[in-house]
Amino acid sequence: MMEKIEYIHDVQYYETDKMGITHHSNYIRWMEEARVDFLKKIGWDYDKLEEIGVISPVTKIDCKYKNNTTFADRVTIVVSVEECKGVRLKLAYEMKKQDGSDVCEAHSEHCFMNEKGQVLNLKKDFPAFYEAIVSRL
Amino acid sequence: MMEKIEYIHDVQYYETDKMGITHHSNYIRWMEEARVDFLKKIGWDYDKLEEIGVISPVTKIDCKYKNNTTFADRVTIVVSVEECKGVRLKLAYEMKKQDGSDVCEAHSEHCFMNEKGQVLNLKKDFPAFYEAIVSRL
Amino acid sequence: MMEKIEYIHDVQYYETDKMGITHHSNYIRWMEEARVDFLKKIGWDYDKLEEIGVISPVTKIDCKYKNNTTFADRVTIVVSVEECKGVRLKLAYEMKKQDGSDVCEAHSEHCFMNEKGQVLNLKKDFPAFYEAIVSRL
Amino acid sequence: MMEKIEYIHDVQYYETDKMGITHHSNYIRWMEEARVDFLKKIGWDYDKLEEIGVISPVTKIDCKYKNNTTFADRVTIVVSVEECKGVRLKLAYEMKKQDGSDVCEAHSEHCFMNEKGQVLNLKKDFPAFYEAIVSRL
Repeated sequence: MMEKIEYIHDVQYYETDKMGITHHSNYIRWMEEARVDFLKKIGWDYDKLEEIGVISPVTKIDCKYKNNTTFADRVTIVVSVEECKGVRLKLAYEMKKQDGSDVCEAHSEHCFMNEKGQVLNLKKDFPAFYEAIVSRL
Repeated sequence: MMEKIEYIHDVQYYETDKMGITHHSNYIRWMEEARVDFLKKIGWDYDKLEEIGVISPVTKIDCKYKNNTTFADRVTIVVSVEECKGVRLKLAYEMKKQDGSDVCEAHSEHCFMNEKGQVLNLKKDFPAFYEAIVSRL
Repeated sequence: MMEKIEYIHDVQYYETDKMGITHHSNYIRWMEEARVDFLKKIGWDYDKLEEIGVISPVTKIDCKYKNNTTFADRVTIVVSVEECKGVRLKLAYEMKKQDGSDVCEAHSEHCFMNEKGQVLNLKKDFPAFYEAIVSRL
Repeated sequence: MMEKIEYIHDVQYYETDKMGITHHSNYIRWMEEARVDFLKKIGWDYDKLEEIGVISPVTKIDCKYKNNTTFADRVTIVVSVEECKGVRLKLAYEMKKQDGSDVCEAHSEHCFMNEKGQVLNLKKDFPAFYEAIVSRL
């Protein structure tokens, strides 16, 4: 059983909107923050990946909003691997507020490409990275 | 048959990221821009709705990315009503680039609330607004 | 006497904050939008500049806020050249709301660099671009 | 002699632009993050101020950019009080990168208002808050 990897985001004032709550687009950005943190914690820093010529565009996202947050809430984001088949990685995100209430449930899907824009097969091209990810399944 | 309601967004420099492409979170914001424009064009300005005490939080979004955009692409966003049952509105978005290529397909779901945070039933509480929306189905 | 070059920005919902007004950081982004538009109108598209290997980082900005704006205000931004001496360009921005009231007064300073990060002298290295700018003084 | 109050911001991927560096507008947002942190550390949380009906709009900002940052740089922001005369507060910001190099020097000016939009005199209306600030001069 894997320990869960948690990331903390403190809601910023500039992330709120005139409804008085966090604008819904920011959760998509926090997913990225949490994903970057997740990759770092499993030993594959996002910026190091870019240095070796691997970029990882987002191919799909979804997010179901459950409870609002606002400035200055502290949001805990748990990232987990939902699926990883060579060319595609699917991550799941659960966000909770400081009071334990659910904030949202979200997913992102990613492919991996080299600098020429060619799709990489993680399993084949970066087996160590692939192993680090699937070991989290 | 309803005419399609189109909205144009020119990609801004500040919307790009270090991959050289539009950051994926911005499409969520453009969905809002297009939605606001859609509501205005069917006679229900978003800010006027707020003036009469109706707010419309996003309860769900999804987006499937197909082709990148970057500064200074011109993106055309077509909004259509996918479903509207009293308390919940589901909109669909299709984005295309100036060359006609697909950019993304997305959806948003919304509820409607009064200033006390009580969920409104559009059909019952704002029949004219409800009619304006379902006539677009 | 030069005609003034105006750019229109409609305030977006996601640009507001929980004070109910446009977050002050967005004006810095609108300055960029207006600057890009200005360069395009004088025949030197920002993206074309990048294609020929010229990038133009911001070296300084200031902004004096006079009156708030909010969703869905329409803001008119007038850009003018304040100074251009070979290696440095200083632009001025005046923003007004639809009712004619002043929104803010701002300035940006820029240098020009090639892809190696070497500072360019517009007058010497891109005389036609330099002329297009100083003719606006 | 006052100890300096430092705030850390890790540059996010979504804060970069296609030049490969942090978009200049984000520094304005980090100033807000650091300011919020500063007020919290001197005992006057920004959100608590809002709860007692005090809002603090930005009336002026300036920023001089010295060296770029990019994902995933760690930026340290030192906030200090430059001037506080009853109705106006001026803060200074110094940002440095993990390697000690200067990132930027910036200032913000603020007034304080109650919920009716009336300008407050901190010295008279909130003497304890005023003292907390000027003791940092």
